[in-house]
Amino acid sequence: MDFGLHFKVQDLLARYAQAIDDDKLEAWPEFFVEHGRYRITTAENVARGLPLGLIYATSRAMLRDRVRALRDANVYEAQRYRHVIGAPIIRPAEDGNVRARTGFIVVRIMHTGETTLFATGLYEDEIVIDAADGEPRFAEKVVILDSRQIDTLLALPL
Amino acid sequence: MDFGLHFKVQDLLARYAQAIDDDKLEAWPEFFVEHGRYRITTAENVARGLPLGLIYATSRAMLRDRVRALRDANVYEAQRYRHVIGAPIIRPAEDGNVRARTGFIVVRIMHTGETTLFATGLYEDEIVIDAADGEPRFAEKVVILDSRQIDTLLALPL
Amino acid sequence: MDFGLHFKVQDLLARYAQAIDDDKLEAWPEFFVEHGRYRITTAENVARGLPLGLIYATSRAMLRDRVRALRDANVYEAQRYRHVIGAPIIRPAEDGNVRARTGFIVVRIMHTGETTLFATGLYEDEIVIDAADGEPRFAEKVVILDSRQIDTLLALPL
Repeated sequence: MDFGLHFKVQDLLARYAQAIDDDKLEAWPEFFVEHGRYRITTAENVARGLPLGLIYATSRAMLRDRVRALRDANVYEAQRYRHVIGAPIIRPAEDGNVRARTGFIVVRIMHTGETTLFATGLYEDEIVIDAADGEPRFAEKVVILDSRQIDTLLALPL
Repeated sequence: MDFGLHFKVQDLLARYAQAIDDDKLEAWPEFFVEHGRYRITTAENVARGLPLGLIYATSRAMLRDRVRALRDANVYEAQRYRHVIGAPIIRPAEDGNVRARTGFIVVRIMHTGETTLFATGLYEDEIVIDAADGEPRFAEKVVILDSRQIDTLLALPL
Repeated sequence: MDFGLHFKVQDLLARYAQAIDDDKLEAWPEFFVEHGRYRITTAENVARGLPLGLIYATSRAMLRDRVRALRDANVYEAQRYRHVIGAPIIRPAEDGNVRARTGFIVVRIMHTGETTLFATGLYEDEIVIDAADGEPRFAEKVVILDSRQIDTLLALPL
C-alpha cells in the first residue's frame, strides 16, 4: 500500500472541503483538471442505474460559470457549510490515476446561527497526479447523496 | 510511532464503515477473525462497570446469523446509514495485536429522505494483523454509545 | 510533504478530542505549552477583524482554573460531547513550528440521551514539537465557530 499516495488524496479532499467551507468558491474549479467532470446524484438514482444527476459539469469553465451565478444570486452569502470527511479508500485506476471513495457529512449554518445536518453521502473520485507539478486534481468527482430529498437551493459545491 | 500500522488500522475502519453504509452487510462478519467478539454497550454501562451489552456476539457465525435476520425482517431496506469516523488512537496490545480507540458519528437517512443524527460513540477495538496475508481484522470490537437512549430498532451493525 | 509531521499533528488532535470526550478535563491543559494561548471566537468576528473572543486564556494555569470551575459547577456532569475532526491542513510556521487548520463537528449528548449537533468550526492551531521529548503541543489554539449563536453554557473545552 502506497502511504504517500493515500496521504496526497486525503490532503486534496481536506483542501477541497476547506476551500468551500471558507467561502473561497473561486478556488473550487482549480481542484479539477481542465476537462474535469463534476456530478451530483443520489444513491437511489445510482441503484436504479439512472445516469442523470442533479448537476453535471464537464469542464472548469462550467464550474466557474456556476460560481459566478452563485455570487450574482447572493444565495451563498446567507449561509456557511462545514464538511467532515472520512478516510478515503483508494485503488489504482487506468493510466496511473487513482480512484477514491470517501464518506462525508455536511452541516449548514444559517445566518441566524441555526445549524442543521444538510447532506451526507459518498464521493466517488477519479484523481490525476499531474506529471508536471506532482499535484493531485479531480478528473471526475461524483457526489452521491444518501437522501433523495434535495434542498431546492442546492446551489453550493458539495 | 509506526505510520504503516496506524494507516492499516485507519483503512480497516474506513472499509468497515463503507461496507455498512453501502448495505454490503454480508461482508460485515468478514472484518472479524473467526472467533471475533462484537459488543454494543453504552458509556453509562461502562462507567458503572456493567459488563453486559445490548448486543453480544462471539463468532463470525453469530454475526452472519444476525445479518440473515436483518435481511429476513427487511428492517434494513427502509433506511441508510452514513458513518464518519475520527483518527484512531492506537497502542500495542498482547501478542503483537493492536488496540485502537476511535470516535464515530452515524447519521440515519430514512426512505423518505429524512436525515437525523442517529448515534455517536467510541470504538474500542483489538485488531489482529494476519500472519499469513498481512490483513488486519477485529479480534474484538466494542461499540460504546454515548447515549443511553437506544432506538429499539437498533438492528444494524454499528 | 512530511508525512511523519502530518501524522503527529493528526494524532495530537485525535488525543485532544478524546480527552475531552472521555471527560478527562484535567488532561486538557497538558496539550498546551506552559504559556499556550487558547481562544474561542466566531467566523463572523474574524471576518469583521474583531480580535476578541468568547474565551481567552494565555497559560496552562488559566486553563486549569477553568477546569476547576467546571468541576465545581458540576455543569459538565450532565452532558457528554463527541468530536469528529477532519484531516488537518498543515504548513510550516516560524521557529520550526507548524500551523494546522482543521474542521470539526461537536455533538452534545444530554443526560437524558438527547443528541444534538452542538458546534461546528475550524481549529487554527500553532503547534510546537518539543525539542526534548519530541511531543507536539499547542502554542496557540484558536477555535473559530461557524455559528454566532452560542450556548450560554459554553463551558466546555472545544
